[in-house]
Amino acid sequence: MLRYGMVGGGNGAFIGDVHRKAIGLDQKATLVAGCFSRNQQNNLESGKKLFIDSDRIYENFYQMAQQESKREDGIQFVVIVTPNYCHAEACRAFLNHGVHVVCEKPFATTLQDALELEQLATSKNLLFAVTYTFAGYPMIRYARELVQRGEIGNITMVMGEYPQDYLLADFDDSSLGKIPWRADPTLSGKTNCLGDIGSHIQFTTQYITGLEIDSVCAKLDCIGPVGTLDTNASVMLKFQNGATGMFWSSQVAMGNDNTLLLRIYGDKGSIEWSNEKPEEFQLTLVGQPPMLIRKGHHYPNYDIFGRLPFGHTEGLYVAFANIYLDYCTALEAKLTQKDYQINFPTVCDGRKGVQFIECCLKSHQQQQTWIHL
Amino acid sequence: MLRYGMVGGGNGAFIGDVHRKAIGLDQKATLVAGCFSRNQQNNLESGKKLFIDSDRIYENFYQMAQQESKREDGIQFVVIVTPNYCHAEACRAFLNHGVHVVCEKPFATTLQDALELEQLATSKNLLFAVTYTFAGYPMIRYARELVQRGEIGNITMVMGEYPQDYLLADFDDSSLGKIPWRADPTLSGKTNCLGDIGSHIQFTTQYITGLEIDSVCAKLDCIGPVGTLDTNASVMLKFQNGATGMFWSSQVAMGNDNTLLLRIYGDKGSIEWSNEKPEEFQLTLVGQPPMLIRKGHHYPNYDIFGRLPFGHTEGLYVAFANIYLDYCTALEAKLTQKDYQINFPTVCDGRKGVQFIECCLKSHQQQQTWIHL
Amino acid sequence: MLRYGMVGGGNGAFIGDVHRKAIGLDQKATLVAGCFSRNQQNNLESGKKLFIDSDRIYENFYQMAQQESKREDGIQFVVIVTPNYCHAEACRAFLNHGVHVVCEKPFATTLQDALELEQLATSKNLLFAVTYTFAGYPMIRYARELVQRGEIGNITMVMGEYPQDYLLADFDDSSLGKIPWRADPTLSGKTNCLGDIGSHIQFTTQYITGLEIDSVCAKLDCIGPVGTLDTNASVMLKFQNGATGMFWSSQVAMGNDNTLLLRIYGDKGSIEWSNEKPEEFQLTLVGQPPMLIRKGHHYPNYDIFGRLPFGHTEGLYVAFANIYLDYCTALEAKLTQKDYQINFPTVCDGRKGVQFIECCLKSHQQQQTWIHL
Amino acid sequence: MLRYGMVGGGNGAFIGDVHRKAIGLDQKATLVAGCFSRNQQNNLESGKKLFIDSDRIYENFYQMAQQESKREDGIQFVVIVTPNYCHAEACRAFLNHGVHVVCEKPFATTLQDALELEQLATSKNLLFAVTYTFAGYPMIRYARELVQRGEIGNITMVMGEYPQDYLLADFDDSSLGKIPWRADPTLSGKTNCLGDIGSHIQFTTQYITGLEIDSVCAKLDCIGPVGTLDTNASVMLKFQNGATGMFWSSQVAMGNDNTLLLRIYGDKGSIEWSNEKPEEFQLTLVGQPPMLIRKGHHYPNYDIFGRLPFGHTEGLYVAFANIYLDYCTALEAKLTQKDYQINFPTVCDGRKGVQFIECCLKSHQQQQTWIHL
Repeated sequence: MLRYGMVGGGNGAFIGDVHRKAIGLDQKATLVAGCFSRNQQNNLESGKKLFIDSDRIYENFYQMAQQESKREDGIQFVVIVTPNYCHAEACRAFLNHGVHVVCEKPFATTLQDALELEQLATSKNLLFAVTYTFAGYPMIRYARELVQRGEIGNITMVMGEYPQDYLLADFDDSSLGKIPWRADPTLSGKTNCLGDIGSHIQFTTQYITGLEIDSVCAKLDCIGPVGTLDTNASVMLKFQNGATGMFWSSQVAMGNDNTLLLRIYGDKGSIEWSNEKPEEFQLTLVGQPPMLIRKGHHYPNYDIFGRLPFGHTEGLYVAFANIYLDYCTALEAKLTQKDYQINFPTVCDGRKGVQFIECCLKSHQQQQTWIHL
Repeated sequence: MLRYGMVGGGNGAFIGDVHRKAIGLDQKATLVAGCFSRNQQNNLESGKKLFIDSDRIYENFYQMAQQESKREDGIQFVVIVTPNYCHAEACRAFLNHGVHVVCEKPFATTLQDALELEQLATSKNLLFAVTYTFAGYPMIRYARELVQRGEIGNITMVMGEYPQDYLLADFDDSSLGKIPWRADPTLSGKTNCLGDIGSHIQFTTQYITGLEIDSVCAKLDCIGPVGTLDTNASVMLKFQNGATGMFWSSQVAMGNDNTLLLRIYGDKGSIEWSNEKPEEFQLTLVGQPPMLIRKGHHYPNYDIFGRLPFGHTEGLYVAFANIYLDYCTALEAKLTQKDYQINFPTVCDGRKGVQFIECCLKSHQQQQTWIHL
Repeated sequence: MLRYGMVGGGNGAFIGDVHRKAIGLDQKATLVAGCFSRNQQNNLESGKKLFIDSDRIYENFYQMAQQESKREDGIQFVVIVTPNYCHAEACRAFLNHGVHVVCEKPFATTLQDALELEQLATSKNLLFAVTYTFAGYPMIRYARELVQRGEIGNITMVMGEYPQDYLLADFDDSSLGKIPWRADPTLSGKTNCLGDIGSHIQFTTQYITGLEIDSVCAKLDCIGPVGTLDTNASVMLKFQNGATGMFWSSQVAMGNDNTLLLRIYGDKGSIEWSNEKPEEFQLTLVGQPPMLIRKGHHYPNYDIFGRLPFGHTEGLYVAFANIYLDYCTALEAKLTQKDYQINFPTVCDGRKGVQFIECCLKSHQQQQTWIHL
Repeated sequence: MLRYGMVGGGNGAFIGDVHRKAIGLDQKATLVAGCFSRNQQNNLESGKKLFIDSDRIYENFYQMAQQESKREDGIQFVVIVTPNYCHAEACRAFLNHGVHVVCEKPFATTLQDALELEQLATSKNLLFAVTYTFAGYPMIRYARELVQRGEIGNITMVMGEYPQDYLLADFDDSSLGKIPWRADPTLSGKTNCLGDIGSHIQFTTQYITGLEIDSVCAKLDCIGPVGTLDTNASVMLKFQNGATGMFWSSQVAMGNDNTLLLRIYGDKGSIEWSNEKPEEFQLTLVGQPPMLIRKGHHYPNYDIFGRLPFGHTEGLYVAFANIYLDYCTALEAKLTQKDYQINFPTVCDGRKGVQFIECCLKSHQQQQTWIHL
């Protein structure tokens, strides 16, 4: 079994726990070290609760990278789940010590950092995954397969939206002062909504279509009571193959829990997928009625993988687990000098994400004009 | 009963028949004259089938306007349902002869015509309706009422989309040569998709919100086999109150029959309405679960008109009938010197629509930059 | 144009107006006589509002049948839209005078009446339609076509439900005394819910499948504040071909406006149709993904009629209009000695409906045991 | 951490793996012993893959019960996930040795066994859970809370359905001979469909409402190519409080993956929940529009627990994990002489389930007449 460590994810943190539970599902890796919080008490308590030996609960990630990389039984990869602002620095520390890395997106808040880390990982030949969640959903993977084998023809339009409402729904007068870290520029970086959920649209549509973005025209708005960074982002896009696109993400769109909706149109058909019913998508081919393609079915033309049989929902933990399963499988092979496949989102995907964010910010700042990527 | 005439709507035409059936539902007006087709044989046959006296089936609308306006039993209003390119000229002819007008949108293909006709109708004190269909849906009217009484607070985001697929779904090699008139620049004007269905988004969202558009940034694409005018239109918008918006319309988005979707977000709540289930909308108020508001229900806070009891679908004919009922009711009152209300879309609404289209075209031509309305 | 008269449907009545508007849509028949209400003032006012000559507004339907059948320009068919209790008597009066009949369902409240009237219509060779609404929906007709050409194989299960909530939703203390006629045994007959909406399930499923019912086991409950007749009906069924079925109808199922849902299962596939989205159904064939079949589309294997293009909703008026169009087309042919087709629900269908109701009542009274039809 | 063993769940088995992964999510218990398959090779390989010491991989569950109960570090509870036919015998073995039990439903195939085991567990004071899956869904738990605090008033109608299609969809000629164990009377017991999924309807509706069943009238059909036991079950019910009900379960209803739909109606409102969108239900109160109540939201009147924030789907593993979390929490407390709560489905619930199945079988055999429970 592989050994891993975690940076971030102490008591009270949401996504770190998701990562751990997801890894636990397949028992391919076990958590043996960590630096779970900047708050030392929380760090120690969190580590203890997770059955980590006290000497492997580290005060900071520099120390952790250094010491773990020296141990014979040291961690083989690290999972970085801190707020955005220290992703890049933590990645750098572990890469420099030769530790393979899994990092939450965005793995950097500047394009310069992103490019440098991509270069570092490549030169050190280390496996670097960026956990774009939606790459773990069976139906997203299957959409990618269909699209890339040409089922819906040449892509002409890419429509993505990701409305949430938690920065309006959960905020009343009594909430003042409880700004989430994502909306705090010192922790989150230069963007909130665009970087958090706009980036999911960008990654997932590119993951499915394989298209490259040519240029963007973006408008960022700070709407609602949490008035520090953007809470609503509108983007028009041109893709290199000539396709056109619109992306909308929002944290203040009342009535929307967490609804990524992706619609990919080609000259032979279309695919529509929504996080509201993640285990199916609608496939429409020119000249035929729309079809509901669902997880776990094995039709003559459509054979869709699922961990559970059709009709049994899998959810977010399993999506993460699928990414980790691919990562761990590749890492096991790599560590034993076997061939392996890269099926998870890579540092290159992550760098493209950072680039997209930077160009959108630039577009917005330059009177919402078009910016070439 | 009122007497009306029709220009366009001969055998084989779609929308003219819808107008006639809709007017017929309420028996407020009866068709007594017409010029149904440029093709005289079709014109005569259509008129005969509609029980029109042969001397009131006219060869052209100039003649019709002139002669009907002289008869004691002449038409009191005219319904213009030709292809776009002759809307303005027909409107002008009847207005000049003092005949009240109902015209399909867009009632003009240039802003200059639109402004001139608006001025003409106003100066002649004639009732001029532009049949933006969606103003006839009970739930759209009710959305307008809720929004304008402040139920969802100050509007912050206006999201509209109208995807269709008929210019892809219905076209194969054997269809070559059967270009619909909407895609023919000589009949339709300077735009196809934007003018046809993009205009429904623009009108209906403004009808609901009462907001004025400040500026637009538009990208028009000609996608699919019918390669003459735009078949896909992407628009970003700024409204005068500071709200932001995105409009998408398409005729080549496989899998979409005719799905206008409007989502209006405010700082106190939101409304989502779709033509797929036109007899309900989702209303979400901050701090409360989403509610399904449906036609014909009379709740303490929500009292929604419907011709049929709740659960009985009304459809497109009734939507048109509702517009005509309002128009005819106003016209009856006006003709008998009584007070009346304007509840239908007016020439002023129609002119704003033409203006929106012109600015979007200009934006697209100027490298998709922002154009002030 | 055909001439028709109406019994019932005075001011304030719901369904009579629907029938008139539906007939009006196609201009195949014109209303020339009537007996619109037992209340003479309402009768006269209603007739006047409908432009009926005062000498053809009759005090009772016996008089109307007698006098209209003597006039050269007398009515050619009558539309009976009274409360249930006088359907049979009115039908008899007009049939006896040789007038063709269209009657709301159930056209009789006892099987004896039903059988007698069926015999009478047949012996007099008169066209007798019973307006089971759902036979007018394009997708129901298309479902019938698919099922009867064997697309889903031999039918194995027939599931129908029709929940409403208006006898709970609309009744509070202030409503006491305002019992609707359907719940009043003197006007409605021996059943309320089962006869009103249970009968729609029975007819429509038999219309689609062509199956005959072998026996029923029914449980009727009187739930809610309107405590006179059944407001909830549960039925298990055996069909003659061995298929099994369950029907549920309710008027006290909160949250349901008017939701007929029909699911027909065969050994090769299934069809699911709901009145909530009446312009589509889901077709699933063994070994293939579910397909969404929608009105107005013309696929290689599925060609579906619609008055309006796909995506434009048609609604209840058009459903009735479709039944009347078939009826009037047949009647025109018959009156001119031409061949004609019977595409509308007939007196035979109506009699089967009355039989179903009687057997369910009998089953319920006999401790909910199985009753052979 | 608690120690548990497993009976059944070897390589290739579906539900055993779900149980293990679910338990793993919360790290409250660790698997230390097992008897995973009647096939010794599979048993050994499965155990090895699960990191079980070879001396704790047992040839049969008698041996396992005996030896584990003697060890100081023996299992504290056992999870039984075999085919139905040996549930009761395995339960008996472990109860007799004082081991706490978690068993898949139905934990017995005869009422006699069920009653005896219930008595045994009670007399030995052992914690006995039966894993009715749906008790683990947050929205089912929340529905129970709402209903039992009277939000929708007195329950009047209980409608449940659970259609699947896998015994039709997955069977063609080439599948002959691959009958799943559920359809094999020697492994499954006297019923297939009713016992497998009909039992979920029965349990979950009783779990939500707290109602007791008075009598049932059941019709079982063996439809489709797998012609051994029932594949379709129709049940009408009377509840002790006077409520009426209908349950439908099927394995041959094409187009349905796995769609439990529960609708509970009261005199003040209703709740509708479907496994298709398990993280929400529709709540309609008399006089108010329907509301969409969703996991993880905290409204003034509706405060709904979720592991993940709203909008993030949790799925089947988490449902099982929730049941195990409650079980393990209670067991930990019990083992340390602390107070504990029983929030999981118990042996008493399981016995009621077996009783329901027996009465339905009896009803069917006695010409589908009513049987008192």
